[in-house]
Amino acid sequence: MVAVTGWDVEPWLAALRQAAPEREFVTEADGADDPSIKYAVVWNQHRGSLSSLPNLEMIFSMGAGVDHVLNDTSLPDVPIVRIVSPDLTMRMSEYVVWQVLDHFRNGPAYRSQQNEGIWRELPQPAANAVTVGIVGLGVLGMDAARILRSIGFSVCGWSRTQKLIDGIACFSGDTGLKQLLSQSDIIVVLLPLTSKTKGLINREFLDSMKQETPIGGPVLINAGRGGLQIEADILAALNNGRLMAASLDVFEAEPLDQNSPLWHHPAVTVTPHIAASSEPTVLAAEIIRQMDRFENGEVPRGVVDRESGY
Amino acid sequence: MVAVTGWDVEPWLAALRQAAPEREFVTEADGADDPSIKYAVVWNQHRGSLSSLPNLEMIFSMGAGVDHVLNDTSLPDVPIVRIVSPDLTMRMSEYVVWQVLDHFRNGPAYRSQQNEGIWRELPQPAANAVTVGIVGLGVLGMDAARILRSIGFSVCGWSRTQKLIDGIACFSGDTGLKQLLSQSDIIVVLLPLTSKTKGLINREFLDSMKQETPIGGPVLINAGRGGLQIEADILAALNNGRLMAASLDVFEAEPLDQNSPLWHHPAVTVTPHIAASSEPTVLAAEIIRQMDRFENGEVPRGVVDRESGY
Repeated sequence: MVAVTGWDVEPWLAALRQAAPEREFVTEADGADDPSIKYAVVWNQHRGSLSSLPNLEMIFSMGAGVDHVLNDTSLPDVPIVRIVSPDLTMRMSEYVVWQVLDHFRNGPAYRSQQNEGIWRELPQPAANAVTVGIVGLGVLGMDAARILRSIGFSVCGWSRTQKLIDGIACFSGDTGLKQLLSQSDIIVVLLPLTSKTKGLINREFLDSMKQETPIGGPVLINAGRGGLQIEADILAALNNGRLMAASLDVFEAEPLDQNSPLWHHPAVTVTPHIAASSEPTVLAAEIIRQMDRFENGEVPRGVVDRESGY
Repeated sequence: MVAVTGWDVEPWLAALRQAAPEREFVTEADGADDPSIKYAVVWNQHRGSLSSLPNLEMIFSMGAGVDHVLNDTSLPDVPIVRIVSPDLTMRMSEYVVWQVLDHFRNGPAYRSQQNEGIWRELPQPAANAVTVGIVGLGVLGMDAARILRSIGFSVCGWSRTQKLIDGIACFSGDTGLKQLLSQSDIIVVLLPLTSKTKGLINREFLDSMKQETPIGGPVLINAGRGGLQIEADILAALNNGRLMAASLDVFEAEPLDQNSPLWHHPAVTVTPHIAASSEPTVLAAEIIRQMDRFENGEVPRGVVDRESGY
């Protein structure tokens, strides 16, 4: 059963059928109560729609995050598997590196100078004089860290549980988060949305950021989930100078409200949740491989720990 | 003797004096004919100003390119050494990766959507579906290629003499250039300016670019020298749809003329020759190391072949 809300289900059905012509796929509407349904492939399923499937064995999230699945209080007690796809990882790293470089290399200021026909060089440190702090050292955070280091940036990272990674200063815990924030010039948030991370990017978080940075002030990039951020606090920090600039790909409510001041704030880059878009053809094949793996007695990759929420 | 036109000489004098307090530095005005002058550190020296130095042993360019030195028809016959600095290489790679990602990830379109408050996802291939062609496989081109590959792009390259590089399809010669242009979605030009490369980016070059690309059309990035490009031909190619977009850091005449249509062309990113700006403190230390190396009987790195012009 393919259970999707907010996205068009058709490209996914087509991609899944192409990836596994021998399997049968039905939509949420057609699959209710059907005892032949073994798997649910879901994005933000209708609450309760999985609880009536008597023989469900596994739930596959169509994205790297599973907050949209776990929101459902009547979720059956079967394993949930999230997407761990090289394609998705690559796309997220592209986005992170793009936005880090755009702030670091004065993209907004040079574009504004071009608009006005101004030829003027701006002060520019080199990458190795700048520290990027990655909040969330999962598969995505680690890959972004690898590329940022290869460009020359100093990279540090924070994770819930302490990690030890060659060439990256690793922090964990509440104190560790404050340390990372106080040492980083550009902060990239790539956390899952859980009960513990909800609203993490709030006034306290923003107040803990480094003030004097070689690029003129601290920069925030959130490509994780909108629920991680308190947008009113981000706006206040931008307006009182605590935060120099932000790139936001995710928002408390999506699509971002037409009246949100984020749209037209001069220090904010808004992108419409496109950092790492699930491409149905690539991800459908990945999900089918996971089913095959499970049926061959192997453990699928990316099984979610419900307690930690990712 | 520090011989500079177009730049402020003072920060360079200060940086050189700091890097080598035991050496004496004079400006072009103060050093004329001085038999005690062994070295010239130059950027676009006054034509003829080096020919009157009776005991000159070596010329150091303050940049990676030496076209500004070789322009001088009365140049004495001593070795010319260009900058090969990890700092400069890092900065150039930052710029190249930044501009490649900005075009590849639809930066201009998303910024325009943000201006209009539009929330809309645009088609997005992954990096490994896109080929970046690097024209010029010197130290700078090779480093940019390394990082672009680590992000996931397919990379090919062109050089005057055939190279063999792991993971990069290498082309050379006139036929090779056409092959590279017909296979690349994004073209990055990092060539030196020589009699052979002058005006290379002309109508014929632009007409040889691939037409159907996964990002909607071919993109040109020139971070080499303005003399490599014919701006009228670039504008014509942009206007007739032969070229989708361009990022230009260098121009036929700099600063770019106020009346140039490049400033306000919607498909052009203009930056004011900032891709890899020489930072006096870092580069002065590098130049002094080269002098030390020479005086210790070693061959400085980056000695220029006058015949090939780089």
